[in-house]
Amino acid sequence: MITLSSDFGTPYPAAMRGVLSQRTAARLVDVAHDFPRQDIRAAAFWLHETLPYFPSAVHLVVVDPGVGTDRNALAIRAGDHVLVGPDNGVLLPAARRLAATTSASEPTIGSGLDAYIIDDTQLDPPAVAGHQQATDPSGPSSPYTTFHGRDVFAPAAGNIHEFGLDRLDALAELAFLEPTSTVTPLTLPDATVADGRATGEVLVVDDFGNVITNVPGSFLADCERVRVNGEQVPVATTFGAVPVGEQLATVGSHGYVELDVNQGRGDETFGLAVGASVTLESA
Amino acid sequence: MITLSSDFGTPYPAAMRGVLSQRTAARLVDVAHDFPRQDIRAAAFWLHETLPYFPSAVHLVVVDPGVGTDRNALAIRAGDHVLVGPDNGVLLPAARRLAATTSASEPTIGSGLDAYIIDDTQLDPPAVAGHQQATDPSGPSSPYTTFHGRDVFAPAAGNIHEFGLDRLDALAELAFLEPTSTVTPLTLPDATVADGRATGEVLVVDDFGNVITNVPGSFLADCERVRVNGEQVPVATTFGAVPVGEQLATVGSHGYVELDVNQGRGDETFGLAVGASVTLESA
Amino acid sequence: MITLSSDFGTPYPAAMRGVLSQRTAARLVDVAHDFPRQDIRAAAFWLHETLPYFPSAVHLVVVDPGVGTDRNALAIRAGDHVLVGPDNGVLLPAARRLAATTSASEPTIGSGLDAYIIDDTQLDPPAVAGHQQATDPSGPSSPYTTFHGRDVFAPAAGNIHEFGLDRLDALAELAFLEPTSTVTPLTLPDATVADGRATGEVLVVDDFGNVITNVPGSFLADCERVRVNGEQVPVATTFGAVPVGEQLATVGSHGYVELDVNQGRGDETFGLAVGASVTLESA
Repeated sequence: MITLSSDFGTPYPAAMRGVLSQRTAARLVDVAHDFPRQDIRAAAFWLHETLPYFPSAVHLVVVDPGVGTDRNALAIRAGDHVLVGPDNGVLLPAARRLAATTSASEPTIGSGLDAYIIDDTQLDPPAVAGHQQATDPSGPSSPYTTFHGRDVFAPAAGNIHEFGLDRLDALAELAFLEPTSTVTPLTLPDATVADGRATGEVLVVDDFGNVITNVPGSFLADCERVRVNGEQVPVATTFGAVPVGEQLATVGSHGYVELDVNQGRGDETFGLAVGASVTLESA
Repeated sequence: MITLSSDFGTPYPAAMRGVLSQRTAARLVDVAHDFPRQDIRAAAFWLHETLPYFPSAVHLVVVDPGVGTDRNALAIRAGDHVLVGPDNGVLLPAARRLAATTSASEPTIGSGLDAYIIDDTQLDPPAVAGHQQATDPSGPSSPYTTFHGRDVFAPAAGNIHEFGLDRLDALAELAFLEPTSTVTPLTLPDATVADGRATGEVLVVDDFGNVITNVPGSFLADCERVRVNGEQVPVATTFGAVPVGEQLATVGSHGYVELDVNQGRGDETFGLAVGASVTLESA
Repeated sequence: MITLSSDFGTPYPAAMRGVLSQRTAARLVDVAHDFPRQDIRAAAFWLHETLPYFPSAVHLVVVDPGVGTDRNALAIRAGDHVLVGPDNGVLLPAARRLAATTSASEPTIGSGLDAYIIDDTQLDPPAVAGHQQATDPSGPSSPYTTFHGRDVFAPAAGNIHEFGLDRLDALAELAFLEPTSTVTPLTLPDATVADGRATGEVLVVDDFGNVITNVPGSFLADCERVRVNGEQVPVATTFGAVPVGEQLATVGSHGYVELDVNQGRGDETFGLAVGASVTLESA
């Protein structure tokens, strides 16, 4: 199985599906192609929340504001999963969680996680019908071409899948993978919880305006109300527990405290955007 | 085959795809994940129109304004199909149609349709990589967790599929299914047609602003014009039959009378929203 | 493999997936269902850019402003691919490119491309659960019904796939396919390049506002700057090469000159819409 995630919108992901289909009969499953554009942290959050529900797979991820620069292309092995994407940190939170099943301490590169730089000069480029000569500067191997998802990451993901999800400890046999011990770090920020008070921030706002914080859901255990940046709101397990248009604090399916409005937009009503500070106090 | 339908937007459905993939190699086919949010009737309409085109399958449906309340989770067997989703009526119009191939009279629970309450305490929860302890209140079996699509409906749908689409008369063997004779009813409203006059209402408005009524398409047979709430509009089999920006009445692919505007929005031009009354008269 | 492309939005494509699944276990891969509505040229462009990355497949395409008129339904064989859709030109640019791998000169109908009119009276209609009688004017074979994607193109695509992608030279054996030598033409416009000056036009604007012209990317080779309709802008291989909000000219993944804004909308900043003239000069 290969999952696909990107901020490409449409129809660009179709070319990746085509290239993958050239190389493998693996099931292709879309995670999302409408991640907030070029927002590494939001993509990292959603991957951290969704990929752990998949069985052993290759996860192709293209949220890549640095495309065209000299940032590396990476493959990271985490347990029986491999994540393929740009070296900008987007893969790491999910990779650490995918590896954690087989590790007591927090996995790091070299300890629980194996990282490889993808050398695209060692990778067969995609076959493409009716294309110009390989020497054409607009051809698929041109330095101008900016679609690494199609021309680098998809071929690498397809080849890794065909190499075998049951042979991931031998990945270094693939000529296009060079082991590396350093990658661009990314850690989603942790909230501080002490004395009935949690200090954190807004990680993402979802499609519906629900404000997802980094405060663990356990903070709300046994609370009936909570003060959010000073303002008192009810704690509920369902939107329907408050009238239409009213605020509530709940625990989202990701396990974090979420600030919502029943049939409304939490981001607007609470006045909170991505990165904003959030203080929660027992009330 | 398992179809997926929800009002989740993105990327939440990805976690359901992951959980299903843990349990089955069945083909996963998306119906839609952008049904109007929490609109049971609109989802029921679209399922009634699309599911009958599928071969034998499990249909996973999550449009669930009552999530977090004590509403039941259901599985309904209809012919060689099973629908899995919340007990709020959303499954029923499609279920009755799917069962109708093998039944002369309108199918009901107990006569053509078998209904089961899903007991999630009898269902293995999803495997999830790197998750907190099961006792963590933010864990997948927590009462706070509000993602029944991932944690209840998808596991049930996957298990039912693996039980066997050719053994659906033995579904009660599954420990997590308890036969029930009562479910929350839902019937899409019927129009009244008599004496060249049809009185109905707007069922849904589609993405393009096309106004879909509950008046059977046969009402327009042999009409060249029709009065819509008193206003005369041409009847046509194609948008192109009227100038750009002009109104028309036609029969949509679902078989109902649709009020459209060539390259415009019917809902705005006709001034009609979901639930509005519509009277059609031969003109 | 069968790919699906349309301007249907959602959930209409689900019925096509159902009908295809009735006839074939082939992998179904979505290209896009949000092509600009009824825009034959935009769809033709995107198909020309994405389909060449697929292995041998049937490509189902429904962008069909003439539905309900007497326009023909077509199947075009191009190499080891078959394109199925309306006879309005939308299939041709992709078909010519898919056939070009096996042909030195530009493929045409009869020379590299085989075209067939689909006779839907020779095609088994979709099975549909619980439907009204076949004589019901709202039934699937009714002249009122406007969903040729579900009722004509999907059945034809499924049957062609099952006939065999390795037997495409015998397609005429299918009773519903009638060879034809004439189809509605469509050629995407070419730019004129001479003396350091390119005169072309805007082919499409993508989701992000990037302006895609028909000027070959090779025009920018060795340029550091280019004048766009008189205005000087930098040439870059990556958005990040210019400050946020600034214009750039680059070569998109499709190989054409693209006019973009770093983290902004090129269409608005350059003041260019689909079909607008673009003159580029070395600067």
